Amino acid sequence: MTRSLPPEVSAAQFDRALAGWRAIVGEPHVVTSADGLAAYLDPFAPGEASEFSASAALLPASVDEIRAVLRIANEFRIPLWTVSTGRNFAYGGAAPRLSGSVVLDLQRMNRIIEVNETLAYALVEPGVSYFDLYAHLRDKGYRLWVDPPAAGWGSVVGNTLERGFGYTDYGDHAATQCGMEVVLANGDVLRTGMGGIDIGTAWQLYRPGYGPSFDAMFMQSNYGIVTKLGVWLMPTPPAYLLGEIQFQHETDLDAIVEILRPLRLDDTIRNNAVIEGGLRRAAGLSARSPWYEGTGAMPESAVTAMLKKLGVGRWNLHFALYGAPELIDARYAIVQRAFARVPQAKFSATRYTGDAQPVAGGDRNLAGVPAMSAFRMLDWRGGAGAHVDFAPVCPASGRDALRQYTMIKTRAAEYGFDYYGGFTAGVRHLHHIFAAIFDRDDAYQLEQAGELLRSLMSDARAAGYGQYRAHLAYMDFAAAQYGFNDGALLRLSETIKDALDPNGILAPGKQGIWPEKWRDRRGYT
Amino acid sequence: MTRSLPPEVSAAQFDRALAGWRAIVGEPHVVTSADGLAAYLDPFAPGEASEFSASAALLPASVDEIRAVLRIANEFRIPLWTVSTGRNFAYGGAAPRLSGSVVLDLQRMNRIIEVNETLAYALVEPGVSYFDLYAHLRDKGYRLWVDPPAAGWGSVVGNTLERGFGYTDYGDHAATQCGMEVVLANGDVLRTGMGGIDIGTAWQLYRPGYGPSFDAMFMQSNYGIVTKLGVWLMPTPPAYLLGEIQFQHETDLDAIVEILRPLRLDDTIRNNAVIEGGLRRAAGLSARSPWYEGTGAMPESAVTAMLKKLGVGRWNLHFALYGAPELIDARYAIVQRAFARVPQAKFSATRYTGDAQPVAGGDRNLAGVPAMSAFRMLDWRGGAGAHVDFAPVCPASGRDALRQYTMIKTRAAEYGFDYYGGFTAGVRHLHHIFAAIFDRDDAYQLEQAGELLRSLMSDARAAGYGQYRAHLAYMDFAAAQYGFNDGALLRLSETIKDALDPNGILAPGKQGIWPEKWRDRRGYT
Repeated sequence: MTRSLPPEVSAAQFDRALAGWRAIVGEPHVVTSADGLAAYLDPFAPGEASEFSASAALLPASVDEIRAVLRIANEFRIPLWTVSTGRNFAYGGAAPRLSGSVVLDLQRMNRIIEVNETLAYALVEPGVSYFDLYAHLRDKGYRLWVDPPAAGWGSVVGNTLERGFGYTDYGDHAATQCGMEVVLANGDVLRTGMGGIDIGTAWQLYRPGYGPSFDAMFMQSNYGIVTKLGVWLMPTPPAYLLGEIQFQHETDLDAIVEILRPLRLDDTIRNNAVIEGGLRRAAGLSARSPWYEGTGAMPESAVTAMLKKLGVGRWNLHFALYGAPELIDARYAIVQRAFARVPQAKFSATRYTGDAQPVAGGDRNLAGVPAMSAFRMLDWRGGAGAHVDFAPVCPASGRDALRQYTMIKTRAAEYGFDYYGGFTAGVRHLHHIFAAIFDRDDAYQLEQAGELLRSLMSDARAAGYGQYRAHLAYMDFAAAQYGFNDGALLRLSETIKDALDPNGILAPGKQGIWPEKWRDRRGYT
Repeated sequence: MTRSLPPEVSAAQFDRALAGWRAIVGEPHVVTSADGLAAYLDPFAPGEASEFSASAALLPASVDEIRAVLRIANEFRIPLWTVSTGRNFAYGGAAPRLSGSVVLDLQRMNRIIEVNETLAYALVEPGVSYFDLYAHLRDKGYRLWVDPPAAGWGSVVGNTLERGFGYTDYGDHAATQCGMEVVLANGDVLRTGMGGIDIGTAWQLYRPGYGPSFDAMFMQSNYGIVTKLGVWLMPTPPAYLLGEIQFQHETDLDAIVEILRPLRLDDTIRNNAVIEGGLRRAAGLSARSPWYEGTGAMPESAVTAMLKKLGVGRWNLHFALYGAPELIDARYAIVQRAFARVPQAKFSATRYTGDAQPVAGGDRNLAGVPAMSAFRMLDWRGGAGAHVDFAPVCPASGRDALRQYTMIKTRAAEYGFDYYGGFTAGVRHLHHIFAAIFDRDDAYQLEQAGELLRSLMSDARAAGYGQYRAHLAYMDFAAAQYGFNDGALLRLSETIKDALDPNGILAPGKQGIWPEKWRDRRGYT
C-alpha cells in the first residue's frame, strides 16, 4: 500500500508538516499508521471507502494548539477536515470529502465548560457526547434534560452543527443552539452574539447579539472550526406522557400529516413527533429473516403479515407531552379527539412522573436519556449491516408526504430495498428520513445502494424537493439542486469561503462548497 | 443652503448618476428637492438632524430596477442606504448613517406575493406594512394573525430585519422569519434556504436549507438588499386571555422575573410578556403635566401619587394565553398560583372567543391587530415629543433586571429624565427598553438626551451588558462593546463586507460595519 498524501503535497513537504504538528499536539496525537487511520474511513461507504480517506489525523487539546496547527496547514496548503467525534455513519462518519485531507479530530477537547440550571443551558467543547453531557447532568443533580439524537455517542457540537435532531420539545438542535466560539482559517478566534461582550453573562441567553448573526452560517459549512457551543436545555418536566398511535393503512399517511400539522402549529404537540413506517418500527422488535428470506424488497404480503404478528401499525405516530399533569391530560384529550377521525387508529400512552423512566431505548430518547437503539437497524438485513440515508425536506402536507413516500418506496423496491423510513415532524415541514440498509460485505447490494441514492436524488430534483443533508459522495449533487438563478446561493457560499479561507485549508468540498484552490474537484470523488 | 452631495463625489458626477437613475426608476421616483428629502431626515434626532442626511432618494419598483440602480452606484462609488418604509423613529427613521448617502426607499415594492393559510405563512415585499398585511388577511378571510410591533405602520421586512418584536406567541420576528430573496451589491440575486430549489414549495417552511444558512447574516447588516421575505403567521386561535398583573413595589421586579422565567421556560406563557414600568403604563392614560410641572425627573412622591390615582402598578405584567379554552383556564390557574407569592399582586384578565377583539390599542396588538398606540408616549412630556431608545439585553434573572433598572433610572434622573421603560420577556433574556422622551424644540433637553444615551452606554459597557440595536449616532459605540479578542467579531463582519461589497456602496456604517473604502469614517458623525 502506498502512503496517502494530501493532494498536491510532496512526501517531503508532508513530513515537514507532520513534524511541525507533532511538536504542537504531541507525538501520540498525530495519527499516520494505516491501522490508526482506518478509524477515519467511512464505515458504511456506499462505494469504495478509500475514496474518502485521510492522510493523517491530528488530535489537538486546545484552541491554541488548533491555531498553531492552522499556521502549518496554511504554510503547506494542506486541507484539514474537522470532526468532533465523527460518529454519524449515515453521512460518512469521520471521513473527509477530499481524499488525502488531514482529519482534525477534536475529541480530546471534551470539557463541559458551564452548566447553568437557572437559565437552563450548557456550554460545551466539541468532544462532549450526549452520553457525557447526560452523565454530567445526572451526576451533579441538575434538573435539566439533554435532547439526544438517535445515537447517543454523537457529539453535541457535531450533531448541532450538522443540524441533527432529537425527539423532545428541544428536538430542533440548530434552533436550540446559542453562542459559539469559532477559530477562523487565519487563526483568529471570535465569539458570536453576546459572546462579544468580554465580561457579559448573556452569551447563552440571546442568540443574535448586535449586527449580523453568524451562528447559522457556521452550520453545515467549512468557514471555521467551532471550539465552544452553547445549547439550551429543557428543565426536567414534572410529568410526561409518551403516546403511540397505530394506523392500519398505507394511505392513512395523508390524514396523519393533515391532523398533526394543526396540533404542531397550535403547540398541542410540541415535540418532534415521529411518523414511523411500519417496517422501521418492526425492525426495533425483530430481524427481517423470519418474515422474508428472498432477494429484493419484502413483498407487501410479507410486510402485512409481519406487522400483524408484531402488533405494529403501517404507520406509527410517536409523540410526547411534557409539563403539568393537568395540562398533559387536556392536551392528550385533544390529540385523541383529533386522531379518532382516522378509522382503526389505535391509541396507547404511558404516563411518567418524578424520576420514573421508560425502559426501551427509543422511548428513553423521548425522556432525555441517550441510547444506541438506532443501531438495531443494522441487524435488520443481516450480514455486515450498514446504511446510507436519503433525507428530503417535505412540506407538512399530506399530499407531499404521500407523494414522497410513494416515490421513495417504489424506487427502493426497484433496486431491491425495503422502505425503511419515517417522518420527523417539524411544525411546517417534515424531515423525511429513508435508510437504504445493506450488507457491506455484499458487493451487489453495496452497488445497488449507491445507484438507488443517485436515482432518489434525481427523482427529488424533478419533483422540487431538496435534501437537508447528504453523504460525502452526494454533497455536490445535493448542493446543485439548490440552483436558483444559476446557483446564486452557492456563489455566495464560495465568495465568503474564499474571503475567510484564501488558502482553502478548511474542509474543501463540504456541503458542495469548494474553495478557489480546489474548485476543480467538484463532483470528482 | 448648499446642495448635499455623496461623499467624495463631484456635483458633475452626481448629476450623471442621477440622470442614469432617472432613466431607470422614472423622474418622479428620484427625490432631490430639500422638501422631498426632509422626509428622510431623522425626525427624533438626539442632535442635529442634518448630521444624517441624504443627498437623494430613489424609489425603485422592482428587483430589476434595483440591479440597474446598483450598477450606477458601483460605477460612481455612491453609497446607498436601504429602507423599507423607514418608520422606526427611535433609531433614526429613514436617515442614513453616512451623510450624503442616497436613500434606496423600497416602499413602492409593496406586493403581498403569497399567503398560505394551511401552512400559515406569507411572502412579502419590503413596502408591505403590518397594517397592509393585516388588512389583506382580514379582507381575504384568512384565519391567520400578524404579530404587530408597537407601531403598525412599520414594514414587515424592515422590522424583521432589524430584529424587532411584537407581543403574541410570534413576537420574536427574527425567529419567525423563513426565507429571503436578496440582491447583493454586485447585482446577483439569490434565495436563501429552500428558496434555492426553483420548483420547490418549501421556501417558507424549513429555514436552514442545505449548507450554511445566511438569513440571520442579512439581519441588522449591510450585506445585501432584501427584496422578499417569508414570515410565519399564527393561525387564529379559538380563544385567548389577556392578563394583567399589577405589582405595588419597585423591588418586586426581582420576584416578577424569577417567577416569570420558569413559566416562559415550560411554555405556560408563550408570548413576549411585558413587564411595564408604572410610568410607561400611566403614560397610556394621562400626560405628565397634571402630576408634575417642574424640571428634571418626576420626584418619587409624584410618581407614587400618580400611579395610585390612575390605578396602575409600579410594575405591570401583560401576558396573553392563546388556544383551546380548557388549556387557557388551566394555564391561567398556574400563572395565578405562581404570582400569588408576590404580596399585593393584583390580577385581572379578559377572555375573548371567536372574533371578539379588545378595544384599547396596546391590547389590540396582543390580539394581532396593528395600532399606533405607541405614539401616545410622545404626548407625555408635551411640546414636540420625541424619544431615543436605549435597549440593553438583560439576562432573565431578577438580579440583573433590578440592576439594569436601578442603573438606568438613576442615570436618567441625573440628566432630568423619567424612567420610561419596561422589559419584554424572551425565554432566557429580556429586552430592556428605555426611552428618553424629550421636547425636540427644547435645545437643552435635546442635548441632555444625547448625553444621557452616551452615559448609559458607558454604564452598560462597564457592567458587561450589550445593546441589541442602536440609533445611528451610537451604532459604532454599540458595536465596539462587542470587543472580545480585540474586536474579532467586527473583523469577521468587515471581512465579509469587503468580499461582498468591494466598492462599499451598501449602507456604510450600518451597525458599526464599515466597508474598506469608508472605514476612516468610523465614530465620525
